[in-house]
Amino acid sequence: MTTATLEPTAEVNSHPPKPTMKALVYRTSGKGSGRPSWEDQPHPTIQHPEDAIVKITTTTICGTDLHILKGDLPAVTDGRILGHEGIGIIEKAGSGVSSFKAGDKVIISCVTACMKCDFCRKGMLSHCRHGGWILGNLINGTQAEYVRIPYADGSLYHFPKGGDEEAMVMLSDALPTGFECGVLNGEVKPGETVAIVGAGPVGLAVLLTAQFYSPAVIYVIDLDDNRLAIAKKFGATTVINSSDGNAVETIMKLTNGEGVDVAIEAVGIAATFDICQDIVGAGGRLANVGVHGKPVSLQLERLWDRNIALTTRLVDTVTLPMLLKVVLSGKVEPAKLITHRFELQDILKAYETFGNAAREHALKVVLTNT
Amino acid sequence: MTTATLEPTAEVNSHPPKPTMKALVYRTSGKGSGRPSWEDQPHPTIQHPEDAIVKITTTTICGTDLHILKGDLPAVTDGRILGHEGIGIIEKAGSGVSSFKAGDKVIISCVTACMKCDFCRKGMLSHCRHGGWILGNLINGTQAEYVRIPYADGSLYHFPKGGDEEAMVMLSDALPTGFECGVLNGEVKPGETVAIVGAGPVGLAVLLTAQFYSPAVIYVIDLDDNRLAIAKKFGATTVINSSDGNAVETIMKLTNGEGVDVAIEAVGIAATFDICQDIVGAGGRLANVGVHGKPVSLQLERLWDRNIALTTRLVDTVTLPMLLKVVLSGKVEPAKLITHRFELQDILKAYETFGNAAREHALKVVLTNT
Amino acid sequence: MTTATLEPTAEVNSHPPKPTMKALVYRTSGKGSGRPSWEDQPHPTIQHPEDAIVKITTTTICGTDLHILKGDLPAVTDGRILGHEGIGIIEKAGSGVSSFKAGDKVIISCVTACMKCDFCRKGMLSHCRHGGWILGNLINGTQAEYVRIPYADGSLYHFPKGGDEEAMVMLSDALPTGFECGVLNGEVKPGETVAIVGAGPVGLAVLLTAQFYSPAVIYVIDLDDNRLAIAKKFGATTVINSSDGNAVETIMKLTNGEGVDVAIEAVGIAATFDICQDIVGAGGRLANVGVHGKPVSLQLERLWDRNIALTTRLVDTVTLPMLLKVVLSGKVEPAKLITHRFELQDILKAYETFGNAAREHALKVVLTNT
Amino acid sequence: MTTATLEPTAEVNSHPPKPTMKALVYRTSGKGSGRPSWEDQPHPTIQHPEDAIVKITTTTICGTDLHILKGDLPAVTDGRILGHEGIGIIEKAGSGVSSFKAGDKVIISCVTACMKCDFCRKGMLSHCRHGGWILGNLINGTQAEYVRIPYADGSLYHFPKGGDEEAMVMLSDALPTGFECGVLNGEVKPGETVAIVGAGPVGLAVLLTAQFYSPAVIYVIDLDDNRLAIAKKFGATTVINSSDGNAVETIMKLTNGEGVDVAIEAVGIAATFDICQDIVGAGGRLANVGVHGKPVSLQLERLWDRNIALTTRLVDTVTLPMLLKVVLSGKVEPAKLITHRFELQDILKAYETFGNAAREHALKVVLTNT
Repeated sequence: MTTATLEPTAEVNSHPPKPTMKALVYRTSGKGSGRPSWEDQPHPTIQHPEDAIVKITTTTICGTDLHILKGDLPAVTDGRILGHEGIGIIEKAGSGVSSFKAGDKVIISCVTACMKCDFCRKGMLSHCRHGGWILGNLINGTQAEYVRIPYADGSLYHFPKGGDEEAMVMLSDALPTGFECGVLNGEVKPGETVAIVGAGPVGLAVLLTAQFYSPAVIYVIDLDDNRLAIAKKFGATTVINSSDGNAVETIMKLTNGEGVDVAIEAVGIAATFDICQDIVGAGGRLANVGVHGKPVSLQLERLWDRNIALTTRLVDTVTLPMLLKVVLSGKVEPAKLITHRFELQDILKAYETFGNAAREHALKVVLTNT
Repeated sequence: MTTATLEPTAEVNSHPPKPTMKALVYRTSGKGSGRPSWEDQPHPTIQHPEDAIVKITTTTICGTDLHILKGDLPAVTDGRILGHEGIGIIEKAGSGVSSFKAGDKVIISCVTACMKCDFCRKGMLSHCRHGGWILGNLINGTQAEYVRIPYADGSLYHFPKGGDEEAMVMLSDALPTGFECGVLNGEVKPGETVAIVGAGPVGLAVLLTAQFYSPAVIYVIDLDDNRLAIAKKFGATTVINSSDGNAVETIMKLTNGEGVDVAIEAVGIAATFDICQDIVGAGGRLANVGVHGKPVSLQLERLWDRNIALTTRLVDTVTLPMLLKVVLSGKVEPAKLITHRFELQDILKAYETFGNAAREHALKVVLTNT
Repeated sequence: MTTATLEPTAEVNSHPPKPTMKALVYRTSGKGSGRPSWEDQPHPTIQHPEDAIVKITTTTICGTDLHILKGDLPAVTDGRILGHEGIGIIEKAGSGVSSFKAGDKVIISCVTACMKCDFCRKGMLSHCRHGGWILGNLINGTQAEYVRIPYADGSLYHFPKGGDEEAMVMLSDALPTGFECGVLNGEVKPGETVAIVGAGPVGLAVLLTAQFYSPAVIYVIDLDDNRLAIAKKFGATTVINSSDGNAVETIMKLTNGEGVDVAIEAVGIAATFDICQDIVGAGGRLANVGVHGKPVSLQLERLWDRNIALTTRLVDTVTLPMLLKVVLSGKVEPAKLITHRFELQDILKAYETFGNAAREHALKVVLTNT
Repeated sequence: MTTATLEPTAEVNSHPPKPTMKALVYRTSGKGSGRPSWEDQPHPTIQHPEDAIVKITTTTICGTDLHILKGDLPAVTDGRILGHEGIGIIEKAGSGVSSFKAGDKVIISCVTACMKCDFCRKGMLSHCRHGGWILGNLINGTQAEYVRIPYADGSLYHFPKGGDEEAMVMLSDALPTGFECGVLNGEVKPGETVAIVGAGPVGLAVLLTAQFYSPAVIYVIDLDDNRLAIAKKFGATTVINSSDGNAVETIMKLTNGEGVDVAIEAVGIAATFDICQDIVGAGGRLANVGVHGKPVSLQLERLWDRNIALTTRLVDTVTLPMLLKVVLSGKVEPAKLITHRFELQDILKAYETFGNAAREHALKVVLTNT
């Protein structure tokens, strides 16, 4: 998001002095990793007519937030409020916001979208010329009492009557990421054989949403037996612990040497990508969901004649309205991904739990601001 | 192709002793490379009720044949008759052939297809359980006076009235390869920007068939100015000689830093694949057409969030009937790819010309058996 | 199917005299309606190398068979053995059959497909130049102890290990018809609102298979409360008895005046088609499944600017292999459609039950030949 | 467009008194037909922050305008300024307009789109909850010196450098209508056989844009030999004058009884719709483009098993950016549709010419405001 498009306009700047608020701030010396800090921060204000200020009622922590703390995303600088998921209530809407007004309860998309640029018109909101993933990244995010949401009309969704807040906060990022990057890009079809490599929150979101299309077989591969047990409960037909190095062999045996129709990478490292390219069958699809930090070796000498498609995607959250309908219909229960709950003021404890996910048996941790 | 499915059946084996024929045979000591040899070979016979014997009237040499001579395809063994493209007249059809009879003029697909297995039913004829690309590879091919075509009903096409033999022999492999692996997989659309990396016969077949979809811009990149001049004549809007190492920079400048909608790899080496992954824009497609001998490095750390699709494909020739209609309508002239013509008996000279393509300014060389 | 393609060939005609068999024969004076007759008929013989003779173990009666008895299909003439669905065991396979041999247990598709003609290559097996729906229509059918299946390789499917014969016989016609003509053509998607007009066996097959795609809402409309109760049990979210003439009003109210995403016509008369065109929302799809005997009035003056698609289709059974996998995975239980069971020799009783479906609460009736 | 969303806001209403302007006004007593009147009208003003006022430089007359004059669109009331196509220069942009500023040259889409509602998000701009086709219909239009464009960011497009004004004004409606409703909905593919029924401006726009996909054969059917001669010049492979009532027979003969792959209705009456349903082949598509005033009889008794798709659509102009690129690339010349040119002040003469299109050999008439 260029500063030009966010330049304050005279019209909206006549704000009274605001009280401060509490927020989870990324503190770093700028060299390598940083730490989360729960601090007073200025209450956000409307900076542009299309902005809205949202009082957060529920938020959560994403694996990406941990990457930020490790220093993996250098664009995130000292002082940034983290967080890109949340439910809240509109405190104030700018004069250019037409679909929302103060008091409306909303789901915040992790993607900020102007809805007018060429990418937004193509449905690639993640690449919005004026937005994309900026919350808790290039601008302050949702792990706070209040957050400013630019392009509110394109970036917020009305919270549905009768909706469950814990289920709905999974629509900010986790469920659409699994669905769009994994299931839609993987073109999962009834009767097919799907393999999901990685059973973290996103891999499990793939698992839950893959079942919208009734594949006959879903393999889930991970190193953690606890997560595999959850995968089994969530609908995996077979789970495979890959710590013995035999996952590829096992799947090739189970598929009579054919490989799978869809292999979904939900980790973000070379080892799991390699499993995917080893097991994808002729005519199959390899959908990458994981965030990768390094190049991988693509076995084109073997794959060039296998009629496969390999896809990448940053979540666009264009399916959020569809997913909302499916959640409301009871066909999927995303709140099942939630293992731990905290008050927002205890977010440092929540980070500690989430940061030791394996030991804590943690998937998604939810924070409530009451 | 398993031997089981090709086992001679008693019913069809009561053939009279046949005269020999002339054929281009791959001769190798089995260690590394080999050489082409023009020799007497047994006249082929029906071995299975679904076979047909075709008298070749026109054939051609493919880049893959040169790879075979270099020893790159170890499955091709000493004594194999090469060639997988051709036009001819049916000398004899097996009792199980229903769509063709002796005397019919036919186009031979480079892909042998039973039309009944699961892959054939999905349109993936290239992966037919009993066929695929076997001609001039696992069984004797078309660079001969006669050839046996298994599964004739699925592997031959009626030569159209008024068709031009030189244009039609391009439908055996070259044109469908460019079209299916490059244009269809690349999903070229009207108004888009396409880059084709490699201006050999297959890259030029991509160029000719990409224009079926009216892209606004077609860049063609190659190291050979002669081929680029031909590309320009065939419809490239801009040609770029990449020998200065600036092709990526040039294209990014021409596209205002956006990259292209479709990047098509038509060479088969890491350097050209790298150009493709460097220039494909967000939301774009990278269609691999080239035959690769080695893995490539895929820049997933940069591409994971770019919403791209990368495809591979062995030509299925399922579009042969469609292409035939387009050729007959005059909307494309594949015979333009032909630069040299020989009598079939002079095929060794043709191999020499084709093997020195750059020096000889050769694209496709055609052989006629009169 | 033209007689030309079925002409007996010398090779296969050296059959010993065969015993007779029992079969359900359509008897008519040729004027209007006819009657079913259980009679001795000649045991079928191989007439073409691609034929197979199948001993029927399970068959069923289709609504279309009742239409034939009423004289609605004049192409069906006196003496025709009816039936186009069945499971059986191959008694003898012609010399041109490569995928099946005597003793194989098979699922018979209602569609006969050569797999080589242009329509078969496009996946439109229903329009096969040499087949299509001919069983129990233009040639003798499956309601008999034995049946001749032309183009056996394209028209039969291996019965899966562990398969249930009652479930599998639903794959001959009922399930693929609902799925292909209703669900696939209607492009049912997760979260959508679907209306199925007609809760007979085919409408219920639509209902069962629509759930492969997780729509949020499925309305089922019918005049028969018993069938609606079954629909409710099979997954309809709301059932509507249209006998009060208010079905359209009810659905428009339930959808806040928006109409449905997909309206599926599963009866075949103007009244039900009209409900569909009245309730389909802007951007929606109207998939016709019903067999219509008369033109309908299409409200183009209202629909021309509504961005809708209306589709028709004769089942191609191309999804039979996919459906087989879904059935085996337990994600759908087509045997739930079966309400009555008879011995094959009691087929006249079965016709009586099926002919009084409302009174008998009959859906599919299954016949076993033990 | 509900009045609620257009309610003036205080912020933008402090306009100085404006001079009047000239405009083409629909005058009617409210009973049946009306007449065009060139009158003084108030200069339009910003009523909503997302509005822009555009000074018209080029506009044109659409067949729909003639329908309005005949009283066929009762929603258009006395005093409405007509016109929904145009090129112009922004005089003033509301404070909520972010993509355009005063002085920008723009193409006006005939469709007004908020870009935020559910329909806009699906790409169905024609059904925008707050816009759609309202220009020259429910609000004042473009046949005037100035026009107010609501939701300017979603409804205007930057005029390209080097663009030709006459070519670009065809992008407001004519070209996208032919392309989206006819070619895209008809899914025209390379090598296919297409029939276009009606050679008026929209039928010819179908003809021009169908060629983006390289069909092998395009039949054009009309009653007017002059228009057929133009169609021939524009790329029709065969033209057929249907005044002898034999068009169906002719096409069936030309297609060997198969019918066409795509039949496109570009008139809007039962007779031309009937030609389309008579000639569409099995597996074909019937794309309706014409504006219909009455229901038609759909031959479902014949079509139910023919695997066809029938589509309707109000143009969404979502392809305007794509078409713009194709026009700029020179692959299509929409200005060829223009037969007559007038000064804007002579628009009454232009209406007379366009109203007698057959006699005047008129297609599109263009009006310039210099």
